[in-house]
Amino acid sequence: MTMKKYVFGIDVGGTTIKCGLFQTDGTLLEKWEIPTRTEHDGDQILPDVAKTVLDKISEKGIAKEEVAGVGIDVPGPVNEKGEIAVAVNLNWGYKDIVGELGSAMGGIPVQAANDANAAALGEMWGGGGRGAKNLIMVTLGTGVGGGIIIDGKIVAGAHGAGGEIGHACVDPEEPEACNCGNHGCLEQMASATGIVRLAKRYLSTYKEKTVLNPERISAKSVYDALKAGDEAASAIVEQVSDYLGNALAIFSCVVDPEIIVIGGGVSKAGQILIDGIKKYYQKYAFISCKDTPIVLAELGNDAGIYGAAKLALDGEVSVLI
Amino acid sequence: MTMKKYVFGIDVGGTTIKCGLFQTDGTLLEKWEIPTRTEHDGDQILPDVAKTVLDKISEKGIAKEEVAGVGIDVPGPVNEKGEIAVAVNLNWGYKDIVGELGSAMGGIPVQAANDANAAALGEMWGGGGRGAKNLIMVTLGTGVGGGIIIDGKIVAGAHGAGGEIGHACVDPEEPEACNCGNHGCLEQMASATGIVRLAKRYLSTYKEKTVLNPERISAKSVYDALKAGDEAASAIVEQVSDYLGNALAIFSCVVDPEIIVIGGGVSKAGQILIDGIKKYYQKYAFISCKDTPIVLAELGNDAGIYGAAKLALDGEVSVLI
Repeated sequence: MTMKKYVFGIDVGGTTIKCGLFQTDGTLLEKWEIPTRTEHDGDQILPDVAKTVLDKISEKGIAKEEVAGVGIDVPGPVNEKGEIAVAVNLNWGYKDIVGELGSAMGGIPVQAANDANAAALGEMWGGGGRGAKNLIMVTLGTGVGGGIIIDGKIVAGAHGAGGEIGHACVDPEEPEACNCGNHGCLEQMASATGIVRLAKRYLSTYKEKTVLNPERISAKSVYDALKAGDEAASAIVEQVSDYLGNALAIFSCVVDPEIIVIGGGVSKAGQILIDGIKKYYQKYAFISCKDTPIVLAELGNDAGIYGAAKLALDGEVSVLI
Repeated sequence: MTMKKYVFGIDVGGTTIKCGLFQTDGTLLEKWEIPTRTEHDGDQILPDVAKTVLDKISEKGIAKEEVAGVGIDVPGPVNEKGEIAVAVNLNWGYKDIVGELGSAMGGIPVQAANDANAAALGEMWGGGGRGAKNLIMVTLGTGVGGGIIIDGKIVAGAHGAGGEIGHACVDPEEPEACNCGNHGCLEQMASATGIVRLAKRYLSTYKEKTVLNPERISAKSVYDALKAGDEAASAIVEQVSDYLGNALAIFSCVVDPEIIVIGGGVSKAGQILIDGIKKYYQKYAFISCKDTPIVLAELGNDAGIYGAAKLALDGEVSVLI
């Protein structure tokens, strides 16, 4: 039997496919990107992935038998068989990811997962959650994504909605609707766009001096203003932190993780973001969970390729129906 | 190797220890109870359990080798080693349940878990959640308990607080404090005592005719009044159902279960309870999870012995740190 030395992690986004070649011990040997060709119902995406992997194997003089597998994550709910019903950003309807990619790669094992879930697994394998087997990862980006890892495995859920924590309803009184159609989703409060939304609403009745300009506001500018001591920014961040801290405290009652990892663009604000969340998390958390560490993600945009590679190594996604 | 034909499930409560002898296929052969002797720091509880199991083995002419194991659940957070830091209702401080009970039974394998988690496993094995491997169970009793099963295993959590969903903060504005010290826990709204609390509050300003008497109110009387068409009862149940439906919808975003099982004394209200919860669950749930079945528990007070027995059969509690 040939030693399995290598594993690939592929993170498919709406514009770019990130690719990583790893040693099976978790060392990232090389990463590269190819464009995501979403035209013609995205039918070239998986062939492109197969080609770039096979090209890399050939370029490096790696034997197929040395490859433990290829893990791939995509933006959408992937089921237990590695199929997806729809991935809007890829122009995909139904797609048998594992089947199609597997046959295009001639026998190299393939595993597939949702991108946010893969990122959580990646942070567990090589990032902020190293050493833990049970974690919650929250990604604060354009939306709010999440991934739940229990016993080292992704909780994908009965409908592929495990870790869809951006759509936890944290404020039923919210008048505006979320993209999902509901009202008061965490995503409406704590995503980069949600923070801007709350900031604009706050500033519309704010009469004092502030460095924040409602016309040119971003999540980054709010946290930057907070760091500069701006009082309006402070009030806005308190609101965001309250929503996030309460939501995380509820999630902890459910799965009681070892650690909570915060990633995504908003997390570039750094420790001041964590401090805000912690203040409210500790207020709302059940007594046994008040000291659960809340940390920044470490892998940035590489979390997906790490997680996809780990998925291929583990050989299966748990918790799928 | 002798065939493992039997397994015991032991459910330790504050006043009574429920015991079940099962076939390994899940058939309950016999059940009985012994008193819980909580005096002297509850130091006779585990010896009593060992004795009643060994007596039953002897009475039935069962060979020890035919016993797959003994599962035991207790009211408190049990860790991965089968230890507990404190169980108030048993007058226990630290106790090595698996170690003590195991040595008292001379080699029969022992597994231990929290009682609410065991009940969830029991409902999965032989109750309302039969056939599912991923479920959330909510117990609406004096308090609100819960258990999360992922991939057929209890999610015990890093601090034994997995499934402690009664302490999800569902209303930060709640002025009264929960027993846990926080404000606005689900338990304050949807337990038998919580429903009474909300009912009294509602009735204190209610001017219309109602069959409900604030001096003699219970969760049962509220649901009975609802069945009789009482408008005050209807308003109170709407409130309770809103809290429960929202909380369950949030939990579904986290683990996306196949099914949600509702048990405990309040669930004797029957389908009308489920109908109320469903109405609000569907309002708040993420689109992929809106049709997750919500059903009544079926095992009543036997859920614990079923779950404890299943635990012993599975031979391990997953998701423990």
